[in-house]
Amino acid sequence: MKVSQLFTRTSKNVPADETAKNAQLLIQAGYVYKVMAGVYAYTPLGLRVLENIKRIVREEMNAVNGQEIIMTSLQRKETWEVTTRWDDEVVDVWFKTRLKDDTELGLAWSHEEAIMEMMQQFVKSYKDLPTSVYQFQTKLRNELRSKSGIMRGREFVMKDMYSLHATAEDLDKYYNKITEAYNRVYDKLGIGDDTYVTFASGGAFTKFSHEFQTICDAGEDVLYVHREKKIAVNEEVLDDAIKEFGIEKSELEKVKSAEVGNIFNFGTEKAETMGIYFTDKDGLQKPIYLASYGIGITRVMGVIVEKFADDKGIVWPESVAPFTVYLVRIGGEEATKHADELYEELTAKGIEVLYDDRDERPGVKFADSELLGIPHRVTVSDRLIEAGRYEYTLRSSGEIAELTRDALLAKLS
Amino acid sequence: MKVSQLFTRTSKNVPADETAKNAQLLIQAGYVYKVMAGVYAYTPLGLRVLENIKRIVREEMNAVNGQEIIMTSLQRKETWEVTTRWDDEVVDVWFKTRLKDDTELGLAWSHEEAIMEMMQQFVKSYKDLPTSVYQFQTKLRNELRSKSGIMRGREFVMKDMYSLHATAEDLDKYYNKITEAYNRVYDKLGIGDDTYVTFASGGAFTKFSHEFQTICDAGEDVLYVHREKKIAVNEEVLDDAIKEFGIEKSELEKVKSAEVGNIFNFGTEKAETMGIYFTDKDGLQKPIYLASYGIGITRVMGVIVEKFADDKGIVWPESVAPFTVYLVRIGGEEATKHADELYEELTAKGIEVLYDDRDERPGVKFADSELLGIPHRVTVSDRLIEAGRYEYTLRSSGEIAELTRDALLAKLS
Repeated sequence: MKVSQLFTRTSKNVPADETAKNAQLLIQAGYVYKVMAGVYAYTPLGLRVLENIKRIVREEMNAVNGQEIIMTSLQRKETWEVTTRWDDEVVDVWFKTRLKDDTELGLAWSHEEAIMEMMQQFVKSYKDLPTSVYQFQTKLRNELRSKSGIMRGREFVMKDMYSLHATAEDLDKYYNKITEAYNRVYDKLGIGDDTYVTFASGGAFTKFSHEFQTICDAGEDVLYVHREKKIAVNEEVLDDAIKEFGIEKSELEKVKSAEVGNIFNFGTEKAETMGIYFTDKDGLQKPIYLASYGIGITRVMGVIVEKFADDKGIVWPESVAPFTVYLVRIGGEEATKHADELYEELTAKGIEVLYDDRDERPGVKFADSELLGIPHRVTVSDRLIEAGRYEYTLRSSGEIAELTRDALLAKLS
Repeated sequence: MKVSQLFTRTSKNVPADETAKNAQLLIQAGYVYKVMAGVYAYTPLGLRVLENIKRIVREEMNAVNGQEIIMTSLQRKETWEVTTRWDDEVVDVWFKTRLKDDTELGLAWSHEEAIMEMMQQFVKSYKDLPTSVYQFQTKLRNELRSKSGIMRGREFVMKDMYSLHATAEDLDKYYNKITEAYNRVYDKLGIGDDTYVTFASGGAFTKFSHEFQTICDAGEDVLYVHREKKIAVNEEVLDDAIKEFGIEKSELEKVKSAEVGNIFNFGTEKAETMGIYFTDKDGLQKPIYLASYGIGITRVMGVIVEKFADDKGIVWPESVAPFTVYLVRIGGEEATKHADELYEELTAKGIEVLYDDRDERPGVKFADSELLGIPHRVTVSDRLIEAGRYEYTLRSSGEIAELTRDALLAKLS
């Protein structure tokens, strides 16, 4: 794509109404547009990042036999009343609305009840289990405050998966499989080294619940981690965990972190409350075991920005970057011809290039490439053409080299 | 994919609460799940169809330099007040809700005002024009009644594109380009022959507005068409059109039709009302020209079902079908081995196969393949293996043939 065709523009001004670094940078670079606090639209650049994250998550969810679906935003009151979660005293993030005949409806902030209500129509027998469904859904949550940019929005995209099982053992096995799948997701997203399966305050039937936490100064949580043993404990359960695992507090490092995923074992609680049973091998009616597994897609995007950004701007890991190469053209006709050709060639090779074809000063182009955080920058200029070289810059390290054509192509493929 | 892994099941029972054929068939076949009137979730099969339709639309929108974005569901009151469209007397399909501090919000039923508000931040000069953005967005509309299945939902997916221009001439040129792009979309969706650019009641600055209408008995509109001349007129403007184009009513055929797309020229109306101006070449501030172009993605899916279904079930055009081949296995070990191998082979070739690996009677499998509407059915049985043949059936015509392996592969690729 050519920068001249992109409708967004970068801005030097830090938005006055944003305190979160992720929102400031994403708005300045033109990845998101703020509609109101906690509500952001995604521009062509931002949408490309989101789709890259979704692709990585989708691959791993499909690999564990997840079936992709899409549920609805509009929710029936009756679906949620049976578990008491319609009540605003129980769930304090509902947005609610009404049909013309005054029937109250909710806007989905989560989908456990909705999924279970749907699945009971299809899951009748042990032969129909296990089964696992997931979606990428826009969730709406009526947060009292929303100051963390896209890390905690009132409207945001979440991947939520739900697995249904006949036995606790089968659920546990799948739950462990998802834990591994999640670890692969964070590895691919470039945050694997600093992401921990974390013990947090209890689930319904387990002493601890599990969260995935990424070490990050902008995070809202405090973890105690043992980097070598890959153990992490949320501050809220530190004393219990120390007892349980026989570790010393002194062995643990205190860090700030951001939740990037959660997995939750409901056991048979939902099915029993909602009256959802299957016929087991022995002919008896038994409640279905349920677990849910979430990854906040937009939230993860925000965490990645917070974690890697430097004083020049965003630094995307290659796997999620909207483009792989930022191509800068400096100079006149000859440079234009040369850069145009390189753009065509790289694009034909399947390399995603954002080509800065604007008539702007080199400094402006370099600053934009840094603010945007595209991993590789390639510069074509009259001087470089004469020398038979390209200037190559790696965004993450700032490494600069003048490369021959062959060396450049080798670097980029 | 294997049928045994799919969590949905087909049903012989026509849903009692649905009068629309599209909803009946899509629910029976397991493409959609009804949450409430006009609100449907999409299962793995249904989502595959939606994604196929979106892919076709996306290709054509990208080909006319549309930039894909994603706006938000939550809308500020102020955005819409300036054009009076916040008022429930002016727009009667709003769902509205409130933040915790009682600030009123709307759930987007359309995005013209939201897009213009965003674009004014980026479009300052004639050099920034023309520009064109589009999205696939879940729209919420508080319809009084909702009885047409997915053809008119309260929650539905729409592709909406917005183009901004400096002059009326430039808008007209692009508007014609989109008309051609839309025609290509409907051709690819398999409904091109029966889809007409239709003259309908006036736009802001034009005698007629344009709709895309597909001849379809379940449609809500009445058209007068001239098939050879490819002219279609909505009943509402028939008298005007007859005068304008010098045609006789007797030349026209009266048909029922469903709207599958609309294009709308706002001229400078929105920009003037909202106070959105650009600096032209002559240094003067001028209002931006706006046109919008919609295709109801879920609606089109419903129209395709209505249009092609027969008494056995759905008949998908190949381009939107969730799978290309329905593979039926009949018989024991030998047939299983044979069918497994064919499944692997076709899948490896990139052909999307739904493999009915269930231990069910042949009649059940055949009926399901017909209800689901997969274009090509291939049967493997002990008798056929002995004869060195596969049974091939084309869903649309019912054509049956016994083919050699080579003839089958040629047919499917």
